Amino acid sequence: MLRAVIRAWRYVAGREGREEVPPDQLHPRRDAEKTVVWIDAEGPEDKDRLQALKSQLGMGATVVDAILNPRERTKLMRYGDYFHVAVHDCQCSQGIVSSREIDIVTGPGWLLTVRHPDDHGSQVDLDEVARRFELQRAEHSATEQGFLLWAIFDVLVDGYFDVTDMVDEQLDQIEELVFPDAPDQAGALRVPRSIFAVRSDLTVVRRAAAPLREVVNAIIRKEIEFIDDEAIVHFHDVYDRVLRVGDLVEGQRDLLTGLLEANLAVTSNQLNQVMKKMTSWGAILIVATLIAGIYGMNFRHMPELHWQYGYAMALGLMAVSTFVLWRLFKRKGWL
Amino acid sequence: MLRAVIRAWRYVAGREGREEVPPDQLHPRRDAEKTVVWIDAEGPEDKDRLQALKSQLGMGATVVDAILNPRERTKLMRYGDYFHVAVHDCQCSQGIVSSREIDIVTGPGWLLTVRHPDDHGSQVDLDEVARRFELQRAEHSATEQGFLLWAIFDVLVDGYFDVTDMVDEQLDQIEELVFPDAPDQAGALRVPRSIFAVRSDLTVVRRAAAPLREVVNAIIRKEIEFIDDEAIVHFHDVYDRVLRVGDLVEGQRDLLTGLLEANLAVTSNQLNQVMKKMTSWGAILIVATLIAGIYGMNFRHMPELHWQYGYAMALGLMAVSTFVLWRLFKRKGWL
Amino acid sequence: MLRAVIRAWRYVAGREGREEVPPDQLHPRRDAEKTVVWIDAEGPEDKDRLQALKSQLGMGATVVDAILNPRERTKLMRYGDYFHVAVHDCQCSQGIVSSREIDIVTGPGWLLTVRHPDDHGSQVDLDEVARRFELQRAEHSATEQGFLLWAIFDVLVDGYFDVTDMVDEQLDQIEELVFPDAPDQAGALRVPRSIFAVRSDLTVVRRAAAPLREVVNAIIRKEIEFIDDEAIVHFHDVYDRVLRVGDLVEGQRDLLTGLLEANLAVTSNQLNQVMKKMTSWGAILIVATLIAGIYGMNFRHMPELHWQYGYAMALGLMAVSTFVLWRLFKRKGWL
Amino acid sequence: MLRAVIRAWRYVAGREGREEVPPDQLHPRRDAEKTVVWIDAEGPEDKDRLQALKSQLGMGATVVDAILNPRERTKLMRYGDYFHVAVHDCQCSQGIVSSREIDIVTGPGWLLTVRHPDDHGSQVDLDEVARRFELQRAEHSATEQGFLLWAIFDVLVDGYFDVTDMVDEQLDQIEELVFPDAPDQAGALRVPRSIFAVRSDLTVVRRAAAPLREVVNAIIRKEIEFIDDEAIVHFHDVYDRVLRVGDLVEGQRDLLTGLLEANLAVTSNQLNQVMKKMTSWGAILIVATLIAGIYGMNFRHMPELHWQYGYAMALGLMAVSTFVLWRLFKRKGWL
Amino acid sequence: MLRAVIRAWRYVAGREGREEVPPDQLHPRRDAEKTVVWIDAEGPEDKDRLQALKSQLGMGATVVDAILNPRERTKLMRYGDYFHVAVHDCQCSQGIVSSREIDIVTGPGWLLTVRHPDDHGSQVDLDEVARRFELQRAEHSATEQGFLLWAIFDVLVDGYFDVTDMVDEQLDQIEELVFPDAPDQAGALRVPRSIFAVRSDLTVVRRAAAPLREVVNAIIRKEIEFIDDEAIVHFHDVYDRVLRVGDLVEGQRDLLTGLLEANLAVTSNQLNQVMKKMTSWGAILIVATLIAGIYGMNFRHMPELHWQYGYAMALGLMAVSTFVLWRLFKRKGWL
Repeated sequence: MLRAVIRAWRYVAGREGREEVPPDQLHPRRDAEKTVVWIDAEGPEDKDRLQALKSQLGMGATVVDAILNPRERTKLMRYGDYFHVAVHDCQCSQGIVSSREIDIVTGPGWLLTVRHPDDHGSQVDLDEVARRFELQRAEHSATEQGFLLWAIFDVLVDGYFDVTDMVDEQLDQIEELVFPDAPDQAGALRVPRSIFAVRSDLTVVRRAAAPLREVVNAIIRKEIEFIDDEAIVHFHDVYDRVLRVGDLVEGQRDLLTGLLEANLAVTSNQLNQVMKKMTSWGAILIVATLIAGIYGMNFRHMPELHWQYGYAMALGLMAVSTFVLWRLFKRKGWL
Repeated sequence: MLRAVIRAWRYVAGREGREEVPPDQLHPRRDAEKTVVWIDAEGPEDKDRLQALKSQLGMGATVVDAILNPRERTKLMRYGDYFHVAVHDCQCSQGIVSSREIDIVTGPGWLLTVRHPDDHGSQVDLDEVARRFELQRAEHSATEQGFLLWAIFDVLVDGYFDVTDMVDEQLDQIEELVFPDAPDQAGALRVPRSIFAVRSDLTVVRRAAAPLREVVNAIIRKEIEFIDDEAIVHFHDVYDRVLRVGDLVEGQRDLLTGLLEANLAVTSNQLNQVMKKMTSWGAILIVATLIAGIYGMNFRHMPELHWQYGYAMALGLMAVSTFVLWRLFKRKGWL
Repeated sequence: MLRAVIRAWRYVAGREGREEVPPDQLHPRRDAEKTVVWIDAEGPEDKDRLQALKSQLGMGATVVDAILNPRERTKLMRYGDYFHVAVHDCQCSQGIVSSREIDIVTGPGWLLTVRHPDDHGSQVDLDEVARRFELQRAEHSATEQGFLLWAIFDVLVDGYFDVTDMVDEQLDQIEELVFPDAPDQAGALRVPRSIFAVRSDLTVVRRAAAPLREVVNAIIRKEIEFIDDEAIVHFHDVYDRVLRVGDLVEGQRDLLTGLLEANLAVTSNQLNQVMKKMTSWGAILIVATLIAGIYGMNFRHMPELHWQYGYAMALGLMAVSTFVLWRLFKRKGWL
Repeated sequence: MLRAVIRAWRYVAGREGREEVPPDQLHPRRDAEKTVVWIDAEGPEDKDRLQALKSQLGMGATVVDAILNPRERTKLMRYGDYFHVAVHDCQCSQGIVSSREIDIVTGPGWLLTVRHPDDHGSQVDLDEVARRFELQRAEHSATEQGFLLWAIFDVLVDGYFDVTDMVDEQLDQIEELVFPDAPDQAGALRVPRSIFAVRSDLTVVRRAAAPLREVVNAIIRKEIEFIDDEAIVHFHDVYDRVLRVGDLVEGQRDLLTGLLEANLAVTSNQLNQVMKKMTSWGAILIVATLIAGIYGMNFRHMPELHWQYGYAMALGLMAVSTFVLWRLFKRKGWL
Repeated sequence: MLRAVIRAWRYVAGREGREEVPPDQLHPRRDAEKTVVWIDAEGPEDKDRLQALKSQLGMGATVVDAILNPRERTKLMRYGDYFHVAVHDCQCSQGIVSSREIDIVTGPGWLLTVRHPDDHGSQVDLDEVARRFELQRAEHSATEQGFLLWAIFDVLVDGYFDVTDMVDEQLDQIEELVFPDAPDQAGALRVPRSIFAVRSDLTVVRRAAAPLREVVNAIIRKEIEFIDDEAIVHFHDVYDRVLRVGDLVEGQRDLLTGLLEANLAVTSNQLNQVMKKMTSWGAILIVATLIAGIYGMNFRHMPELHWQYGYAMALGLMAVSTFVLWRLFKRKGWL
C-alpha cells in the first residue's frame, strides 16, 4: 500500500485561489474573514496523522473509526456540530466498473476528505472538484463551503453518467451480437459473458447511486445547517441527476433482461433450424445409401444387376430420390 | 445542427388570434389587459439569444444552464416566481419510438418552450398545441395561460397513446407469429427481435410518462399559483390519462412477457417434435439398411441368396419392417 | 354501430316498481317525496340527446366529453354537486374475456348510466341491476339511490367472479394437459397457447378490478355525500369482494406461472428422454450394421466366410450385440 | 351435504368446565357473573336455525348473509356492537393442502363459530380450541372471552406451521430428486409435478395467512373493545407467528424457484452430455462402417483384398480408429 | 441434548473485570453503585432453573414460554419494565450457513441471554461479546448495560458479513465455472448445485438480518428507555451495517440470478455448437459411406470397377468430398 499523503488548503473569501497549509497548522474554526479549509487524505493508512487531525478538528473517536474502516454504506450522519458523509464514486477503466469510497467529514469552516483506494489502488481524483469549486466561488463571489461539498457530489454523479453512457454503448454492441446482420458464430458465444459483465457493472453503479438520493435529500432539507441556500439550490440539481441515473439504470437493466431473453429465443430458434436441417440431410443421404445397399446384396436372382443400364438406373434412382426429398424438405422450410 | 429559431407571440384577452412579436421586444410582465406571451425556441443552440431572453424574462443562470443541457429528468421546479417544467414526448416514425425533450419555463404572463431535437433531428411540433389553446380560449372566453400549459401536456399524452396503440397492433402481429394458423418458418425467426423491439419502445414511453404523473399532480395541487382553477380542472383529465397510459404499458409488458414465454414453449415443443420425427425416420431407414447389409454379406453358405425369390423377399422384408415401424411410431404420436 | 337508445325511469318512495318517463321530461331534482330518476343510454353515439340531457341534468361540458370518449380509466371524480364514476365490467363469451366500459354520472336524485359496447357490440346488461335495486328497496323500505349505484357495482363484481371461476376451470384443464395421465401429444402442443390465453384474460380482469378498489373506498369514505349510511354498509361488502377478486387473480397468475415453468421442465425432460432413446437405438443398430458391413468386405482370405455356419454366426453376433447393448441401455435408464 | 349441527356451551366465571345449553335457550347478554356463551354451527346449511339465532343474538341480515356465503375474504368487520371475523385454516391430508373457512361472530359475552366444510367435507376441528381456552381460563382465573378468540387463532396458526413443516420436508425431497446422489431417472421426471404441487400448497397457505395479519393487528389496536388487555397480550404472540409464517412461506417460495431453475440447468446439462456422447459414438462407429464399406467395394484392382492378412488388417484398422477416436473424445471430455 | 448450563456475572462500575455469581444469588436490581448482571443460559432445556430465574428477575410466564420455544421471529417486545429481544446469528461451517437463535431478556441492571443450539448442536459463542463489552467499559469508563446489548448485536452483524464475504468468494468460483478459461466439463456440471447452495445461504442470512433492522431502529428510537445515549450512538453504526448487509445480499442475489441465466445461455450455446458439429461430421462421413456403398453394388456393367485405378479414384473421390465438405462447414462456422 502507498503511504497516505495528507494535504490541506485554505480558501479565504475575497482572495482568488487557495493557499496550501501544513496539516499540522490548521486553525479551521470559522473566523471573521470567511475561510474554508480543505484537508485531503489519500487513503486512511496514516493513522497517526489522522489522530493528530482528530484533536485539531475536534472529531470524536467514532468518526475516526468509521473513516479507518473503508466499508461504509453511503450515508450522512451528524456528530455534534460536524457531519460524516460517506459516498462512493464509479469509474470504468478497461471496461470494468469499480467503486471507490470517499469519506467526507465537514464542520463549520472545514472539510476533510479521506479517499479509499479500490482493488487496483486507484483513488477518486479531486482535481476536477477543486476546479468546479473555484468556478462557483468566482461566479457567486462567495467562499461558501457548501459549494465544495456540491462539487464533490457533482463530480461523483458525472462519473455515474459516464458508466451509464458506457453501458449504453455496450448494450448496442450486445444487441448487434444477438441480432447480427450476418451470422456471427464467435459473436453469439460472447453474448452470455457480455450480458453478465454489464449486469455486474449496473449492480455496482446502482449500489453507489441509490443511497445517495437520501443523502442529497437530507442536505436539501438543511440537515447540515451551515450550508447556505445558495449552495442548496445546486443540490436540487444533483438530486434530479441522481434520480435520472436511477431511471437510466432501471431502463438499462430492463433492456438487458430483454436481450438475454431474446438471446435465449434466438439460440432456441437456431437449434430448431439446425435440427431440422440435420434431419432433412440425414434422411436424404440415408435413402441414397439404402439404394446402394440394396444393389449391394448378393442374391443370385436380382434382375436389375444384369441390365445393361442397371448401374445408371441405380445412380439415377439415387439422384431422383435426393432431388425429390430435397424439394420436399425445401417446401416444408426445413432446408 | 440546424440554427435555433426563436419566435414569440402575444395573446391578448378579448382579441382573437395571436400577434407575433420580435423576441427582443418582449414585455412579458402581466399587465392590466390579461395577455400571455409565448416564446418558442427550436433547440437551445442559439445561446446568445437565450442569454438575451434570460435578462428580459428575469430567469436565473441555473435555469438557463438546465435548458442548455438537454438531458433533464421530467420534473417541475420552482425558481422564485417562475417555474421550470421539463417533459418528454414520444413519437413513432417507421416503427421506432423515440423521445424528445421539451423544456418549459413559465412565469406570470409568459411561457417559454425550448424544444430539443432527438437523434434524427426532429423536434416536438407545437402547431397542435397552438390550435388547442385557441379552442380553449374561445370556449372559456379567457386568455388563461394555464390552458397553454395544458395544451402542451394534452398533446404529449396523445402522443403516448399513439405509441400504445401502435404497440397493441404489434402485439397482435407477434401473437400471430407465435401462434401461426399455418406453419410460418420465417415468421418464427422474427419473433425474438420483434419482442425486443416492442420492449424497447415500451421502455421509452414508460420513461417519458411515469414521472409526468408527479408533475401533473403538483400542478393539480396548485404549486404553480398563477394557473387558475378553470385550467386545473383540465389537468385532472391529463392526470387520469397519464395513469391510464401507465396501466396500458404495464398490461402490454405483461402480454409481451407472456408472448416471449409462449414462444419459448412453442419452440421447445417444436424441437421435441422434430427430434421425435428424426428418431423415428432414422430408426426406420437404418433397419432397412441393416437388412440390405445382411444380404450383402459374402458368406458362402447363405441359403436365402440362392432362393428364386430371395431378392423379392428381402425387398418385402424392408417394406414390411418400414411399414410396421411407421405404424408403431405413428401410434406413439412421434410421426 | 347501433343507434343509441336513451330511456329513463322514476322510482318514487313508497310506490312499488318504476314508471318510465320520456328522457326529455326529466325533473330529476330531489323533491319532497323521495324519488330516484335513472337514465340509461346504450352507447354514447346519440350526441344530440346527450347534449339535451346535459342541460336538463346540469352537467358540465367536461363530463359530457369524458362520457363521449369511451377510453376512461376506472375512477370517481367530483364535478360540483354531481359525480362521474367510470367502471368496467368483464364478461366471458366463448372463452374470451372482454371488458366493457360503463360511465355513471350521479347527482342528488338522479343517476345516468352510459354503456359503451365492446368490440363485438355487446353492452353491459342492466336488468339484473334493476332487479337487485328493487330487492333492496323492498327490504329496506327506502328508495335510496345509493342502492342503485351499489347494485351496479355488485353486478360488476359478480362478473369478475364469473371470470375467475372460468379461469379456475381452465387452469385445471391446463394442469391436465401439462401432467397428462396418459401421454397426450396434441394436448401438450396446445399448452403454450392456452396459458397465453388465460394470461390475457387475467390481464383484462385485473385492469378492470384493480382500480375499482379505490373507487369503492372513496364511496365508503362518504365522498358522495348524498349516499346514505344504509347503502354504505353494502359497499363494505363490495370492497371486500373486490379485494378477494384481486387475491384470486394474483393466486391464479401465480399458478399460471407455475404451470408454464412446469411445462418447460416437462418438455425439457421429454427431450432428454427422446435424445437418450435415440442415442441408444442408434448405437444398437449401427453395431449390427457394422457387423454386416464387415462380412460384406471382399477380402479373399476371410475364414469366417467359408465356415458352414458363418452366416448363422454373423446373425447370432448381431442378435447378441443388440441384446447386450439393449440390456446395458435399459439398465442405465436410457430406454 | 351433511346436516348442520348447532350446539352451544356456557362458561361461567369461577366454575370449572362448561355446561351445554340448547341453542334455543341462549341468554348470551353479559350479566353480573361473567359468562361466555359459545355457539358452534357445523356448516351454514341449517338456515332456519341460523335465522333463529339471528334474533336471539341480535345479528343483522347482512352478517347472516355473509355467513351463509362461504367465499369470504379473511377480514374483521364491525356491525354495531358485535363483530364478524372471517378466517381460513389450512390442513394437509394425504399431501394435499386445503383451506377451510370459519366465520366468527362475537359480541359481548357470546361468540358464534360457523365452520364451512372444504371440498372433502371436512371442517375445522374445534376440540383443541376448547382445550386451550380451558387452559387459559385456569391459568388466569378469568373467563375472558378474548381467550376463546385467541385460542381459535392460535390453533389456526399452528395449522399453518404444520403446512410449512410439511413443505420443508417436501423441499428436501425435491432437492434430492434434483441433485440425486445416484442417477435417478424416474425421480427426475417427477420433479416438475412435485414443484408445482408445492407451489400450489404455498399459494393456499399464503392466501389464508397473509390477510390474517391485518385482522390480528386490528384486534391488538383494540378495535374489539370488549377484549381485555390480558388477552390482547396473547394476540401479540399470534401476530409474530403470522409474520413468521409469511417469512417462512416467502423463503420456501424462493427455494422452490431455486430448485426449479436448478432443475432446468441440470436437465440442460444432461442434454448436453447426452448429445456429446451421441456425437462421439456416432462418429466412432461410422468410421468403422466406412472402412467396412470401402473393402466391400467391388473394384477389380484392389490390392489389399488379395493380401494374406488383408482381413486382419481391415479389422485392425477399425480397432485402431475406434481406439484413437475414443481416446480423442475422452480427452475432450465428451465421453 | 446437552444439559443447559446457567452462569451469571456481575459488572460493577469502577471495578475492572467481572465477578461470577451463582445464578441463585442474583440481586439484579439496579442499586446506587451502577452494576450490570449478565445471566447466560446455554439452551433453554433447564426449565427448572429458568423458572427459578423467572421469580428472581420478575419475568412473566409469557416471556418464559417464548424463551422455551426456540422458533421466534426476530423482534423486540416490551413486557412491563423489561424487554424481550429475539435475534438470530449466522455462521458458516464447512460451507454451510446455519442460523441460531438467541433470546435476550433485559431489564434495568440485568440482561439474560438464552442461546439455542442449531441442528448441529452448536450455539452462539459469547466470549467475543464479553471482550467487546469490556473494551467499551474501559473506553467510556462507564458500566453501561447498553454496551452489553450493543456488543451482542455487533458480533451478530460481524457474522452476517462473514457470510457475505464467503458468498463473494463462492460467486467468484461459480463465475469461473460458468465462464471457464479452459473448457471444464466437470465444473459445468457443478454449477446448478453451487448456485442453489449459495441461494439457500443467502435466504438464511436474509431471514436473519432483514427483521433486525426494525429491532435496531426501535432501540435507536429509545424504546428501551434504560439504554443511555452513549450506547445509542453505537446502535446507529449497527443500523448502517445491517442496511449494508441487506444491500450486499440483494446485490449478491442479483449476481446469482445473472450467473444462472448466463449458465443457461452458455449451455444452450454449447448445445448449438455440438449439434452443428455433429450435423457436419455426420454429413461428411455419410457421403464417403455412400460412395463406398455405390461401388459395392453388384451390377454387372459398372465400368469404373474394371478401371485400373478405379479403386484409387474411389478413395480419391471420398477424400475430395470429405475435404470439400469440411471446408464448406468450416467456412459456415459449424466446425
